[in-house]
Amino acid sequence: MKQKGQQSISFEKRVFLVSSGTVVGEKEGQGPLGDLFDLVCPDPVFGEDSWEKAESTMQKEAIQTALGKAGLASYQIRYLFGGDLLGQLIATSFGVEELNLPVFGLYGACSTCGEALGLGAMAVDGGYGDYVLAVTSSHFASAEKQFRFPLAYGNQRPLSATWTVTGAGAFVLGNRKSHAAITGFTPGKIVDFGVKDSMNMGACMAPAACETIYQNFMDFSRQPKDYDRIITGDLGYVGKRILVDLLKEKGFDISGNHVDCGIEIFDAETQDTHSGGSGCGCSAVTLGAKILPALEKGAWKRVLFVPTGALLSPVSFNEGQSVPGIAHGIVIEHC
Amino acid sequence: MKQKGQQSISFEKRVFLVSSGTVVGEKEGQGPLGDLFDLVCPDPVFGEDSWEKAESTMQKEAIQTALGKAGLASYQIRYLFGGDLLGQLIATSFGVEELNLPVFGLYGACSTCGEALGLGAMAVDGGYGDYVLAVTSSHFASAEKQFRFPLAYGNQRPLSATWTVTGAGAFVLGNRKSHAAITGFTPGKIVDFGVKDSMNMGACMAPAACETIYQNFMDFSRQPKDYDRIITGDLGYVGKRILVDLLKEKGFDISGNHVDCGIEIFDAETQDTHSGGSGCGCSAVTLGAKILPALEKGAWKRVLFVPTGALLSPVSFNEGQSVPGIAHGIVIEHC
Repeated sequence: MKQKGQQSISFEKRVFLVSSGTVVGEKEGQGPLGDLFDLVCPDPVFGEDSWEKAESTMQKEAIQTALGKAGLASYQIRYLFGGDLLGQLIATSFGVEELNLPVFGLYGACSTCGEALGLGAMAVDGGYGDYVLAVTSSHFASAEKQFRFPLAYGNQRPLSATWTVTGAGAFVLGNRKSHAAITGFTPGKIVDFGVKDSMNMGACMAPAACETIYQNFMDFSRQPKDYDRIITGDLGYVGKRILVDLLKEKGFDISGNHVDCGIEIFDAETQDTHSGGSGCGCSAVTLGAKILPALEKGAWKRVLFVPTGALLSPVSFNEGQSVPGIAHGIVIEHC
Repeated sequence: MKQKGQQSISFEKRVFLVSSGTVVGEKEGQGPLGDLFDLVCPDPVFGEDSWEKAESTMQKEAIQTALGKAGLASYQIRYLFGGDLLGQLIATSFGVEELNLPVFGLYGACSTCGEALGLGAMAVDGGYGDYVLAVTSSHFASAEKQFRFPLAYGNQRPLSATWTVTGAGAFVLGNRKSHAAITGFTPGKIVDFGVKDSMNMGACMAPAACETIYQNFMDFSRQPKDYDRIITGDLGYVGKRILVDLLKEKGFDISGNHVDCGIEIFDAETQDTHSGGSGCGCSAVTLGAKILPALEKGAWKRVLFVPTGALLSPVSFNEGQSVPGIAHGIVIEHC
């Protein structure tokens, strides 16, 4: 039975994570995971003349890295699932057009990596493609320009704010055996607690992460201990506390095995990143650089990977709307 | 075999279009299809206080109409596939959040209706859900604000420009027998002819429509005559001519059975809409109001429905980037 519980999917055929590619900027390269990324580029515009083109170039490099590790040419990929944070997904459109692949553009804010992996896994498991690509990216400067203030303005940031990760992660999913597989998927609902503070996205997203993780436990009849790690995308220090508290109220204590990519990727003490890292790229590059290798080696047997997104735009924020959250849960297992 | 040819999908189980809901604005109500829509709202802000909220309200109404016709409650829907033209998909996020459904946010510009129907059909055919919703919208005023000039500026529009349709279309796809089914899907590639004129989107999108239609013919071993109609989304008069010419160069003449939703929805002579209608809502409401009824009655046996999208943002346009196109092809048959 593919439909599992109220809103999850159990993949009958294993959908393998065949390879990954991770590309980051200099600041991410100086962080705790710095040595684990495939490519650290010291040039913040990646040789281009705009932040948006820089982000597209990161996507291209991440995809080529993933394809190279898999020993595949782009024509062997059936479909591409991709997205980013920019209006009308321009980082993705211009990043992937040269590949000449059918493209599904996705937007789930910083949860997009989960959306892409989940839909990609459905495509492989459903028999619609032997190999598909999932790619997501974010860039500190293009995101600040999109959502906040011009960099040159030097705006002060509250301690609850996160720092958008400059990074792109690409993943080849397919039928070919590897040592990590996607075995389950809990697509997320939009959860709106009415928080309106775009400088506290952890608080906006934590309720959605709670709902998705709780539903995953229900649908698969699991408990926190059934996962070696439960890994959220970019809640940061503020959102992490809220998530742990909310799940305790529902009877589950994940404090012992919860990890947040936004906390992992930067050293908040020395890197001035306040609540932590964020952005589509944050969870994507942490998955590729740290989580997958641990699963492939068997150090972890099963994790729940939950990229988290804050659904706001400059327009909705300026019009006084709240910032709803969404989170997609991907079950990944060693095999 | 679900994988058909180079990039298409043949749905083994029929995926039925169980019901549709169409909501439009006053101008669309005055057009040639006016009597066919489920709801024509004379208030351009749909009772809200912003254009964006108006668009969200249209989505809600379209979904409720589709659910009502299907005799389904929202909890019977497994997943929702939706998107719109606005940055970060705010019309969709705020339009669907009350439904309390798992949501896949999609962006393919005005091709999003095709992306949503295609992924929704994959979800149903793959056994991941008995019923799913596909919803898309556009609003003239929110789109002008997003992409062009403030309405009060009264900017002149060249004759190649299209008029964004104020409309939302929602579709319930599922296992339950109806008289129209999605039997094939040709997801589109991004095609970039280097056109940079955002006031001539027909020219930007026609090459992508050509590629998708041509590939559909190849993958399914079909010819134009195998479709009662080949229906593009919003090429308008300018794009239609280009598409017909491009396909002639590839050896196919679709001039006898090509229809464009952007041409159908307005009377260009009397409604001052220049090249025609456009927007995610254009193809969606035309599908619900005109195409599906013709298929359900059996007046048409098989159509190729090809929503077309122009992948630009105000940022990419201002930075001098081209406007690539994308088009997703959906095969719908009477049954």
